[in-house]
Amino acid sequence: MIQMTLIQIDNYGPWTVTPNPRNESDLQILQAELFADVQRQFAMKKGLVFFMRFDNMLAISNGLNKEDHLRIQRSIRNRYPITISMGIGTAKTPYEAQKLATRALQTKGGAQSEERKEILAIDSLVKPEDSFVQIAHIDINGVTESLTDIIPAFDTSFLVNRAQHYLMTKLIEKGALLFFIGGDNFMSPCNELSPKKLLQLLEEIDDEIDIALKAGVGRSDNAEDAAYMADLGLEEIREGNTDELIHVLEK
Amino acid sequence: MIQMTLIQIDNYGPWTVTPNPRNESDLQILQAELFADVQRQFAMKKGLVFFMRFDNMLAISNGLNKEDHLRIQRSIRNRYPITISMGIGTAKTPYEAQKLATRALQTKGGAQSEERKEILAIDSLVKPEDSFVQIAHIDINGVTESLTDIIPAFDTSFLVNRAQHYLMTKLIEKGALLFFIGGDNFMSPCNELSPKKLLQLLEEIDDEIDIALKAGVGRSDNAEDAAYMADLGLEEIREGNTDELIHVLEK
Amino acid sequence: MIQMTLIQIDNYGPWTVTPNPRNESDLQILQAELFADVQRQFAMKKGLVFFMRFDNMLAISNGLNKEDHLRIQRSIRNRYPITISMGIGTAKTPYEAQKLATRALQTKGGAQSEERKEILAIDSLVKPEDSFVQIAHIDINGVTESLTDIIPAFDTSFLVNRAQHYLMTKLIEKGALLFFIGGDNFMSPCNELSPKKLLQLLEEIDDEIDIALKAGVGRSDNAEDAAYMADLGLEEIREGNTDELIHVLEK
Amino acid sequence: MIQMTLIQIDNYGPWTVTPNPRNESDLQILQAELFADVQRQFAMKKGLVFFMRFDNMLAISNGLNKEDHLRIQRSIRNRYPITISMGIGTAKTPYEAQKLATRALQTKGGAQSEERKEILAIDSLVKPEDSFVQIAHIDINGVTESLTDIIPAFDTSFLVNRAQHYLMTKLIEKGALLFFIGGDNFMSPCNELSPKKLLQLLEEIDDEIDIALKAGVGRSDNAEDAAYMADLGLEEIREGNTDELIHVLEK
Repeated sequence: MIQMTLIQIDNYGPWTVTPNPRNESDLQILQAELFADVQRQFAMKKGLVFFMRFDNMLAISNGLNKEDHLRIQRSIRNRYPITISMGIGTAKTPYEAQKLATRALQTKGGAQSEERKEILAIDSLVKPEDSFVQIAHIDINGVTESLTDIIPAFDTSFLVNRAQHYLMTKLIEKGALLFFIGGDNFMSPCNELSPKKLLQLLEEIDDEIDIALKAGVGRSDNAEDAAYMADLGLEEIREGNTDELIHVLEK
Repeated sequence: MIQMTLIQIDNYGPWTVTPNPRNESDLQILQAELFADVQRQFAMKKGLVFFMRFDNMLAISNGLNKEDHLRIQRSIRNRYPITISMGIGTAKTPYEAQKLATRALQTKGGAQSEERKEILAIDSLVKPEDSFVQIAHIDINGVTESLTDIIPAFDTSFLVNRAQHYLMTKLIEKGALLFFIGGDNFMSPCNELSPKKLLQLLEEIDDEIDIALKAGVGRSDNAEDAAYMADLGLEEIREGNTDELIHVLEK
Repeated sequence: MIQMTLIQIDNYGPWTVTPNPRNESDLQILQAELFADVQRQFAMKKGLVFFMRFDNMLAISNGLNKEDHLRIQRSIRNRYPITISMGIGTAKTPYEAQKLATRALQTKGGAQSEERKEILAIDSLVKPEDSFVQIAHIDINGVTESLTDIIPAFDTSFLVNRAQHYLMTKLIEKGALLFFIGGDNFMSPCNELSPKKLLQLLEEIDDEIDIALKAGVGRSDNAEDAAYMADLGLEEIREGNTDELIHVLEK
Repeated sequence: MIQMTLIQIDNYGPWTVTPNPRNESDLQILQAELFADVQRQFAMKKGLVFFMRFDNMLAISNGLNKEDHLRIQRSIRNRYPITISMGIGTAKTPYEAQKLATRALQTKGGAQSEERKEILAIDSLVKPEDSFVQIAHIDINGVTESLTDIIPAFDTSFLVNRAQHYLMTKLIEKGALLFFIGGDNFMSPCNELSPKKLLQLLEEIDDEIDIALKAGVGRSDNAEDAAYMADLGLEEIREGNTDELIHVLEK
């Protein structure tokens, strides 16, 4: 079972334009620092946060209980001009878990409601003995040599975004999620997705848009260790220790 | 003329896995803080940075000269475990400017070269009298009501990414760029793109993927003021002061 | 028993002037961010860090084990241009605990040794059942009314520093420590110091340098809760709910 | 003429205990990050900020005009739960400049007034042609060898604080200020203080409390360059290129 937390800035849209539009650079800094901050706090308990839309972040939160979440909310309230609400859900697939997390929060009021503030809506928490996280770390083959050092920077970004779009489209159908994590790297929480299915999916993308991908897959009872196993798996492929496009490691 | 700076972390890929893969949460924090930090420094001179791929960021840098860039490089070197190289280009369109900026940097060595470090490669700097920036701030109509408060968080993210992909595809052909800035918001540096063309492009997207967009367009001699004018333009539409999908303001 | 951790930047002095003196503003930012960062990580486990000399920080670390310390060291290594070594000591008094922590680290090499790097030197860790922290939160009576709003800012700072110097001098003799925490506030980890002794000490200072102090004293099995109890105690005095200069609360 | 800016958090004391005392670790992080943030912004224009009491900071702000100050205030308002007011003063000595800066702000309302918010009170701005900054960078001889690596960490801190207290006491009489900047280092904005007077003062301290100090003195038209010259001067002494305890450099 994977536990996911939806982190939502309360009433953020209206705040950004009250009384006048706030400076864009300030908002960009605020969002990036909030993400970094929340990340550091989840990471202390082996969770992992994805920035997603910045005003809505998703975290794999196996190992964090109710008190941990409340502490993070309090810490943000004390240091930022905004507050955050959270929803927590647990399920067999990451897609289902975030769906439950979202619904739990949605029933407490709208994201732009002036009344809803610092809600912690818990649909379910994973039991230690059921805790399981599978993450795929996916990247594009030879992106530096073939793209970064040759074509314009924005064109590379365009191609990475194209890969992301196709990956998202295909993974969501399998109950998996997909997040861009910088460079040419993606992380996919993908409990219940078999390596075989994932491989097939990467091959489809290569066929359809001619972007060659590879993936390390890691499994553990928490996000940090699963991500690390996925990193090691990807290194195995990069170093040519395996001919496969996918390498699975478990801790 | 718009001036764009490509900011590239030196030899970042190899660093992230040396001697072993570094913890993913640490890398996410590092990237987010570096972006926030660079943003704050460009913003002091009315520039604006987009995170793009985090290891490669693009900035509108009208108003920043060589010394300003060197100062930012030094400041990063003194406080981070990595260094940054930069390329600067100036052109009529943002696409062309980033292309020149990229090429200037590429000629100094590869992004993963161990020799290349803290390069500042200047193709061209804009003259104060020629300085001009046009930015469109684009968002999705009623995303909170129709998406955030109703469907799962990841599905909303998927739709926003879909809009981004279509916007990028169409804007790049016009010499314009597109960056996701959080929530359901995008910013497009788009010198030389007429409001009429932009409108047509938004309507095409509505037809093709059924996502309704609107845009404020701002013009000034620097990124900060152009972005602010774009924000104000968007507010005019949101508040119903105009029936158009695009509103242009100049400072 | 109180557990204290000495956090020391490795080989920092030489680094700040290699190859040339680094910009002072950069060093100030680096030090402040490192402190904030380490603080956030200790705080996730209810620890509390004092900046002390910035290159040498002291933390009350009851509740943090070896793995927690290693995680913090790794996290800093991945995001800063410097690394940190730590020593951990446990004793009846805070003074004795930091002494053991310091000695443990000193035996592993000098602060400016090029060989010593990222040492974790553990003299002793507190057992959960023995964990006890007493903290006094001390402030100056009416500093805003009598100083901040009337005399020059630096003069106020001078008087606060004077109070600090006298407090340090007297507390160290009792096995207690004293840290400035901003404004007119001090925190004193002070296990084994009786409220009566503390009161006497505050009265001596009032007599000697005419600065009137008051203190909330908190007790718990961790730094966070002890500090909070001390805050509540101080509020009791501020609000006039007690006539005493010292108020003790326990959790 | 030196220009100094007093930066004061508005109504901070009451905020820290409303509705209940806020977590001490959160406040410490907030204060450190605010200082780092303000520092980075002043530094972009070659200013230099000293944390002083954190809720009251002093900056050497030669080179920053009214608009620069307003921009910093706006940037803080957009990203923190608090706002800052500022006072600016200009004079021949740093002491006099901060006195004018303080008074300008004090006349606009109290630091804990609920009405006063985000005030910018300008007594005077330095004219470019009159701009002059003298800074002494003072440190303790051989502190690592004789203290850090030998005695307990808190004892070293105590001795550094003792040196600070004596330095402050003596410098304030000469119209100079003194700030602790970490380690065993102090910076003294000291326009109008002759090297000879400074030397005499250091020798007095050696006689009185047996702490041997040395100083580099830098002069320029802005704080950044003056501090850098002071650093270089100090390096000259450290490297034994001069037998004097004070070395002066000008840019």
